[in-house]
Amino acid sequence: MSSGLIQRIAVVGGTHGNELTGVYLIKKFQQFPALLKRPSFEVMTLLANPNAIAANRRYIDRDLNRCFSKIDLSNSELTFYEDKRAKEIALQLSDVDFIIDLHSTTANMGLTLLPTNRHSFNLQLSAYLSHINSSVRVCLGSSDNCSRLRSLTSLGCVIEVGPVANGVINMQLLQKTENLVYAILDYLDAYNQGKSPIIPSHLTIYQTISSIDYPRNAAGELQAVIHPQLQFKDYKSLRTGDPLFLNLYNGKIMIYEGETKYPVFINEAAYYEAGIALTLTEKEEIEL
Amino acid sequence: MSSGLIQRIAVVGGTHGNELTGVYLIKKFQQFPALLKRPSFEVMTLLANPNAIAANRRYIDRDLNRCFSKIDLSNSELTFYEDKRAKEIALQLSDVDFIIDLHSTTANMGLTLLPTNRHSFNLQLSAYLSHINSSVRVCLGSSDNCSRLRSLTSLGCVIEVGPVANGVINMQLLQKTENLVYAILDYLDAYNQGKSPIIPSHLTIYQTISSIDYPRNAAGELQAVIHPQLQFKDYKSLRTGDPLFLNLYNGKIMIYEGETKYPVFINEAAYYEAGIALTLTEKEEIEL
Repeated sequence: MSSGLIQRIAVVGGTHGNELTGVYLIKKFQQFPALLKRPSFEVMTLLANPNAIAANRRYIDRDLNRCFSKIDLSNSELTFYEDKRAKEIALQLSDVDFIIDLHSTTANMGLTLLPTNRHSFNLQLSAYLSHINSSVRVCLGSSDNCSRLRSLTSLGCVIEVGPVANGVINMQLLQKTENLVYAILDYLDAYNQGKSPIIPSHLTIYQTISSIDYPRNAAGELQAVIHPQLQFKDYKSLRTGDPLFLNLYNGKIMIYEGETKYPVFINEAAYYEAGIALTLTEKEEIEL
Repeated sequence: MSSGLIQRIAVVGGTHGNELTGVYLIKKFQQFPALLKRPSFEVMTLLANPNAIAANRRYIDRDLNRCFSKIDLSNSELTFYEDKRAKEIALQLSDVDFIIDLHSTTANMGLTLLPTNRHSFNLQLSAYLSHINSSVRVCLGSSDNCSRLRSLTSLGCVIEVGPVANGVINMQLLQKTENLVYAILDYLDAYNQGKSPIIPSHLTIYQTISSIDYPRNAAGELQAVIHPQLQFKDYKSLRTGDPLFLNLYNGKIMIYEGETKYPVFINEAAYYEAGIALTLTEKEEIEL
């Protein structure tokens, strides 16, 4: 983006092989490239983890979306399938200005935009998208997200849609994701042509603060799970005294005892092994 | 059951390793066996596919719940992990009178009872359970279900609960399943003691008739998926002219053109590879 323009865009799916929304949207875009074509830039599409897609699994050896830190990319001793794929992808996307990475979640995240960082360009785009579609929420990751695929460029975002089970296509959520991709491309094209749409002066974001693991025993085995009252309550305020977990074995309720936060990724399937039952965010109004 | 009594019961979970409702209920029952204890019978518990549970996958080599046909069980040349497990389980459950096998589904099946067959004992139990809990639906499989684990005994059932993503515990659905297990055990105990509860004279069942695969191209690749209007509409009537599939690539709607049926297992994740987009049932009133 040395010219100040977005010249090359990558739309990526299948970074996690069992998140079919992105996989099938990329297949569609590859069959009908005109859908992504805009006058002022080139768009490439990528199925990031073909072996995991073929196996209908999140990953083969390790989570591809944790393989993109600069240290790992330059470490030739990392030779898992995903380590090798990450290096190939980093090379393939080296001249790209903007990445859109398509994901899905079993949590009730609706249509969530995860901008790569707080770059004003990303925030303005986010403000525009949540302005034209009030169901779009904007969530910012923590600073340790440098291992994500999206971190290959400073401009870009993840689209995260849910709730949808892994290995399933929910057509309504696929269509919402598809329309959001088109809205992003239209915005970028308008920007390139000096016709950026009017941006709202404020943006509501959910800034990731910390995560909470499931209660486990000494062997690491799950002892309690998300309380039914918290299930599917992503982005709703979680206040001190609210039920958090329910013990599987003795039925005891564990309550939340912190300051008011806004949980996301509640009961995401892939995060059981990552030690994340939910992620806490703070709601923040940003002036643009 | 030579005495006419139910003397030994098996409660099974983890036949599919990523269906965590059953897995964690069995872990709970194994930690607190008193929960299953009733005066008139013995109950054993079983995690059917430990390697698949450890891997958080449906199966390792092939679907364990398709390995129990008499032909396969007596075929020593079948040596996949699940073939071996099936033989071990068949031996382990050889003196069992009644099997309860705990499953979950990504389809909106609510709390579904799948009796092993139309044995009057199974139907009476089903009628009782759907009488005391009107949310319980009763679905009968097709005659080719002899390869299922539950077919090891003529008395028994599967409990199928959904919608829940694989690899996720939805505590509300787990509790519903747990309570249904207790209701079955209470019924069997009352039966043994000659105190069977009064059974309704009629039972509504959904009899499996056939299945419909997703539209695919010559290479077998998915071309269309469940239409948004049909998603989560398990057990609702599907009438000729109703939208069935939506083409991923050209947006065309494919309508249903048969007689009125009641679809189940709509968009079940595990059935993409099995070639089942939904299963059609007929609603039937049975006199008991």
